[in-house]
Amino acid sequence: MIRAAIFDVFGTVVDWRTGVANVTARAFEAKGIDTDPLAFAEAWRDEYQPAMQAVRSGARGYVSLDDLQFENLHRVLARFDIAGRFTETELWNLNSAWEQLPPWPDSVPGLSAIKEHMIIAPCSNGSIALMTRLARFGALPWDCILGADVARAYKPDPLAYRLSVAALRLAPEEVVMVAAHNGDLDAARAEGLKTAFVSRTTEHGPGQSTDLEPTSDWDFVADDMTALARDLARDQAQAG
Amino acid sequence: MIRAAIFDVFGTVVDWRTGVANVTARAFEAKGIDTDPLAFAEAWRDEYQPAMQAVRSGARGYVSLDDLQFENLHRVLARFDIAGRFTETELWNLNSAWEQLPPWPDSVPGLSAIKEHMIIAPCSNGSIALMTRLARFGALPWDCILGADVARAYKPDPLAYRLSVAALRLAPEEVVMVAAHNGDLDAARAEGLKTAFVSRTTEHGPGQSTDLEPTSDWDFVADDMTALARDLARDQAQAG
Repeated sequence: MIRAAIFDVFGTVVDWRTGVANVTARAFEAKGIDTDPLAFAEAWRDEYQPAMQAVRSGARGYVSLDDLQFENLHRVLARFDIAGRFTETELWNLNSAWEQLPPWPDSVPGLSAIKEHMIIAPCSNGSIALMTRLARFGALPWDCILGADVARAYKPDPLAYRLSVAALRLAPEEVVMVAAHNGDLDAARAEGLKTAFVSRTTEHGPGQSTDLEPTSDWDFVADDMTALARDLARDQAQAG
Repeated sequence: MIRAAIFDVFGTVVDWRTGVANVTARAFEAKGIDTDPLAFAEAWRDEYQPAMQAVRSGARGYVSLDDLQFENLHRVLARFDIAGRFTETELWNLNSAWEQLPPWPDSVPGLSAIKEHMIIAPCSNGSIALMTRLARFGALPWDCILGADVARAYKPDPLAYRLSVAALRLAPEEVVMVAAHNGDLDAARAEGLKTAFVSRTTEHGPGQSTDLEPTSDWDFVADDMTALARDLARDQAQAG
């Protein structure tokens, strides 16, 4: 019996590319900067995995994603040759773009439907602070916030899954990891969790080439979050 | 400007005495045990502070409240001479009484009103698992769960407040601690938080003798959670 669903958030629940570009566009417009906000959002996101890798490898201790994104922001602004155009306060406001990401249209109805049957929580690399503000922005109805800050580890580090499950006092097989990324599900399955793939074929824009299809026999595969809600409800009814 | 309100839960938001007695009464009835459930609930609660004190003092490492309550349950059952009447599964079901505590009538409307103005989260000695299930039971609309599991420390240990505030990436003065217990507010104020006292004069039953009145000049004093919501909204409007 599945008792909790935990979710990847960036890309799976919310559209980071559009959201970051929207906030960036307003900030650039105010400064008369003509850099393409979508290109900027993608470049900023490209710094995401390398920044976390330093923590995963043990080269540095746990630093929350808010601070990693802020470091990355400086790097990307320099690359676009617009460093120095923003005050410290303006940079933090720009960094809060990651707290203002629109949910995919099916996310809130899907999460609400799943919540009727089991605990729902993010298992994201975003911090408690970031996930909390993002939930308020998009009305995401989480029961609690799990993930990086709870585990002090970044996915796909096994600890991120193991300690999130442990925080709910459940067994791994009682928890389903939901993600639009096959690699995330690989790591969750290795820890004994159930797995659910939700397709997000435009997360990286119209030219996306990765994670277009499930690459393994995940326990659930759904086209969107409301379809997943139906599948999970059916599974729980059969098990219960 | 206050940006978050964090709450004591047992006694302040929910009525543990009635809730534990209700679940206990059903369990006792099923076994033909005639122990008074309210007396049992109070005896169980009396073990609460001593159990946490062992963690606070460093005599043992952090153990979640679920496990402390389970240890305490054995002790109290023995004292009432009814140890051995329950299976392991039945004991865990009895332990889940702490996840089935009714909110005071004003709690859900009050929390919902406060949530319109700021982040709301428990800062309780209950674990993430316990607080999550309790929120689902009583429809408590938390934005996230803070407190003991996040800090790995039990109130009034300063770390419980400090790390809960840090998890939100706020300064202490941007956070108000809400409690029906003066001692909890003393400790929060010492860490620089704002403080709000909500009267709960029947938490311990009709003969309650403690925390009937605020014992210091707390920033806010309210008769219930909806009154506090009005006071907090007014304060935020003046500050903003």
